[in-house]
Amino acid sequence: MVENRPGVLARIAGLFARRGYNIDSLAVSATEDPSISRMTVVTMGDHSHLEQVTKQLNKLVDVITIDDHTNDDLVEREIALVKLTATTENRSEIMQLASIFRGEIASISPHEETLILEITGDTNKIDAFLETLSKFEIRELVRTGTVALVRGARQT
Amino acid sequence: MVENRPGVLARIAGLFARRGYNIDSLAVSATEDPSISRMTVVTMGDHSHLEQVTKQLNKLVDVITIDDHTNDDLVEREIALVKLTATTENRSEIMQLASIFRGEIASISPHEETLILEITGDTNKIDAFLETLSKFEIRELVRTGTVALVRGARQT
Repeated sequence: MVENRPGVLARIAGLFARRGYNIDSLAVSATEDPSISRMTVVTMGDHSHLEQVTKQLNKLVDVITIDDHTNDDLVEREIALVKLTATTENRSEIMQLASIFRGEIASISPHEETLILEITGDTNKIDAFLETLSKFEIRELVRTGTVALVRGARQT
Repeated sequence: MVENRPGVLARIAGLFARRGYNIDSLAVSATEDPSISRMTVVTMGDHSHLEQVTKQLNKLVDVITIDDHTNDDLVEREIALVKLTATTENRSEIMQLASIFRGEIASISPHEETLILEITGDTNKIDAFLETLSKFEIRELVRTGTVALVRGARQT
């Protein structure tokens, strides 16, 4: 949780860059309190790496709280949009595969032979879905990055 | 579209901060090409503001392409997770409202009287959903920020 002030993102991203910490995905958006933003960062590394990141981030005045969710029982979600080439021949196969993953068709343009699928889930599910689609021509792909809340009454 | 290199996010966020451009939401993630990341930035302003942002971003070596999607026919999606206090008394009303927006229950903890709803849609739909939920106690809220693809064959 960070102060919703200009420059906060630049300072946080700058810290990750200077220290050489990678950011696998990042989602920044409003919370229930307009003066506070929530940043969800996915970063890979061992326990001491995460401890270092947390310590450094805690030094920034813009940072209100920081929580390491590695071991928490989370609801994790991201959304992916995938634009595929879909001909009359393969369209029903695409739709069948999408339905297995509870993906939905967000847009279809039969004359241009494209469709856009939307899929929601945790990162593993979306990776598996994209793997399944790799036999088709993926024209474009965008993912939001993961957001998460801790299950139950505990604050995330 | 930006080079997937350390420090790219810091440089882009730094540019927004120095110039005083606000970022309403930001989603950063992988694309179909691992050397390239896609950043989806939502920023508010008039036409000349957007022109300036685009011009400045184009000067960064990490930036490969930049597209202003203000007037495009887009599929826009974000996901929100909302943790609510849900008692035996109000749970069915919450579920009914959620189903109107095609929201889903991602997690339920009856003993702690909480549940987590997940909802997918464009920003307007999610704003309307949260407005509808405001009569209940929203304990926590997280949103991914918007991602988008242009409908049809045109590249986003």
